[in-house]
Amino acid sequence: MTTHVRIIGTGLIGTSLGIVLSNNGFRVSLQDPSPTAVRLARDLGAGDLAEGEQGPSPDVVVVAAPPDVVGPAIVAALQQWPAAVVTDVASVKEVVLGEVLASGADASRYVGSHPMAGRERSGAAAARGDLFDGRAWVVVPHDGSRPEAVRTIRELAAATGAAVRVMPAHEHDAAVAAVSHVPQLAASIIAATLRDLSEPAVGLAGQGLRDVTRIAASDPRLWTQILAGNAVAVREVLRGLQHQVGDLVTALDSLVDGDGRGALGTVSAILEAGNLGHARIPGKHGASPAAYDVVSVVVPDQPGELGRLFNDIGAAGINLEDLHLEHGLGQPFGIADISVVPASAEPLRVELDRLGWRIHD
Amino acid sequence: MTTHVRIIGTGLIGTSLGIVLSNNGFRVSLQDPSPTAVRLARDLGAGDLAEGEQGPSPDVVVVAAPPDVVGPAIVAALQQWPAAVVTDVASVKEVVLGEVLASGADASRYVGSHPMAGRERSGAAAARGDLFDGRAWVVVPHDGSRPEAVRTIRELAAATGAAVRVMPAHEHDAAVAAVSHVPQLAASIIAATLRDLSEPAVGLAGQGLRDVTRIAASDPRLWTQILAGNAVAVREVLRGLQHQVGDLVTALDSLVDGDGRGALGTVSAILEAGNLGHARIPGKHGASPAAYDVVSVVVPDQPGELGRLFNDIGAAGINLEDLHLEHGLGQPFGIADISVVPASAEPLRVELDRLGWRIHD
Repeated sequence: MTTHVRIIGTGLIGTSLGIVLSNNGFRVSLQDPSPTAVRLARDLGAGDLAEGEQGPSPDVVVVAAPPDVVGPAIVAALQQWPAAVVTDVASVKEVVLGEVLASGADASRYVGSHPMAGRERSGAAAARGDLFDGRAWVVVPHDGSRPEAVRTIRELAAATGAAVRVMPAHEHDAAVAAVSHVPQLAASIIAATLRDLSEPAVGLAGQGLRDVTRIAASDPRLWTQILAGNAVAVREVLRGLQHQVGDLVTALDSLVDGDGRGALGTVSAILEAGNLGHARIPGKHGASPAAYDVVSVVVPDQPGELGRLFNDIGAAGINLEDLHLEHGLGQPFGIADISVVPASAEPLRVELDRLGWRIHD
Repeated sequence: MTTHVRIIGTGLIGTSLGIVLSNNGFRVSLQDPSPTAVRLARDLGAGDLAEGEQGPSPDVVVVAAPPDVVGPAIVAALQQWPAAVVTDVASVKEVVLGEVLASGADASRYVGSHPMAGRERSGAAAARGDLFDGRAWVVVPHDGSRPEAVRTIRELAAATGAAVRVMPAHEHDAAVAAVSHVPQLAASIIAATLRDLSEPAVGLAGQGLRDVTRIAASDPRLWTQILAGNAVAVREVLRGLQHQVGDLVTALDSLVDGDGRGALGTVSAILEAGNLGHARIPGKHGASPAAYDVVSVVVPDQPGELGRLFNDIGAAGINLEDLHLEHGLGQPFGIADISVVPASAEPLRVELDRLGWRIHD
């Protein structure tokens, strides 16, 4: 029997979800306060317009509304459709769960979701059927969630092409605070220090700074909502960070004005802890980190040169695992740092060298 | 007449400099406390072994010694060769200048340098004649530097292919504190928070976190020396950062435990300041920032697919200005974010679409 999914909220996530589920044999009905938005989503192939109150009950309801109205929308869905499994897609889970539990609605049919698939652009017009491909989709059951409701949401998530992870709300919120929310704040704070810097000083910015601050270009309005929704967990991580910055300032104080005793040890310990933490970040496809060797190649800044390079790599039968392009400053070329499995590094160097590429090593 | 350059210290920077200067018609003599290191540099084409005390005086001396011995080495060079212009390549300038001025040596022939061209690897074996290509080389005169000495060092820097910038020591140190040293610390601190995180939590790490923490993999020993040498300027920037983290914690405190008044404004203001600061970072080749449009293309994870993509871009006569590769999690493909000048974005989309590429837009 075809599963009937009601999507409430046809923004980027709701519309993308409608497209991929429709493509995969689900029956999708769409609902949004904005008649324009919901028609656009339908025209994009996200599903049919939902019928009124008298229409058939959905099997699953996905609340894809803005963060600040998610809780009440879940509660309303649980009450309106007494047999439906209900989920949401908000990026913070404990606050939402609290609202659902406090409502008195049948929370056994509620299972939270967090598809980690944002984009810089928002709205139905930016929607894509492949938005969830390969992204993490965290399924967030609570103690009272029925096992079959959890299974239903896991299957729904898997149908989008996402990599399904399961964890409780507090664990989810603490995890995203550390791997996403506080890094976002750190990038913003570092970028903010550049605002009043002199032009010549900003002109010395290199690739390291570009990487550290790339996500500082994110939407402040959206991120303010996300951070406010995860205030407890974000504050916890941020306090640790505050502590480390304080230790560093104290160490530098001691170097500048005091006897400097232990100061270098403090600085070095933070840099070493950074090495260790960095090494834990999973590689591509969730592979174990630091498993790759890097081959650095000079790429002339002309149309087709990168193409020629990757063609040569492909022709050698070697698969590129990661790529980092570093730019020259005021010079017409770049350096491509190519990560490959260790066994491929030397063969790749030999082959590229043979083909006339300049290799940094 | 051929300029004779003495290079003192044949590590990565000294040896690379010797190679590029030798290739460009300079006469280079090499000197290093380690006979093995200096012979390796010579064998790599960095120049000739320096003759003893009785040998001819160099026109220019470049001190490329480790940070903690640079000052005395400059002073010794000024005293040993009374007609030579002397520079160094240390990444912090004010401390070094102070030592030179305090020494009583003829500081009018001293002009500092900072070629911003580090690598992950060090030592002569990692040296490259193109190490400085397109990197910034900051020339750092002081009030007493003779104009012709400044000109000599500018010409030397330009001969390496570097983009020459000129600024005084305190301005240089403040600039690198903001654009390099504190971002390094921030990346390390954020990465350090991952050290004790649970495996499932680390598993949610995405591309944003990877970017923020990439430079956290840098060498702690080297960075401890750099940070200690620039303690005053780093502390200044770090205090601003400490202040902002404090404001954020206070705002979150207010959201969690208080009335939340003004808290969202504080969070939003920091995110907005981050937007503004980020927008100031120069693009590739020092071009004005944010001048590019991004075309996002789905790349199957098979040998040759990236090659085919860049080949197609090159065949369309379109030059790629920047590239960011984003990985799927647990899925065999990635998304290439391709930056091009705005006028090329739509033609590129049309052409890639025609050739069957899946485009995110």
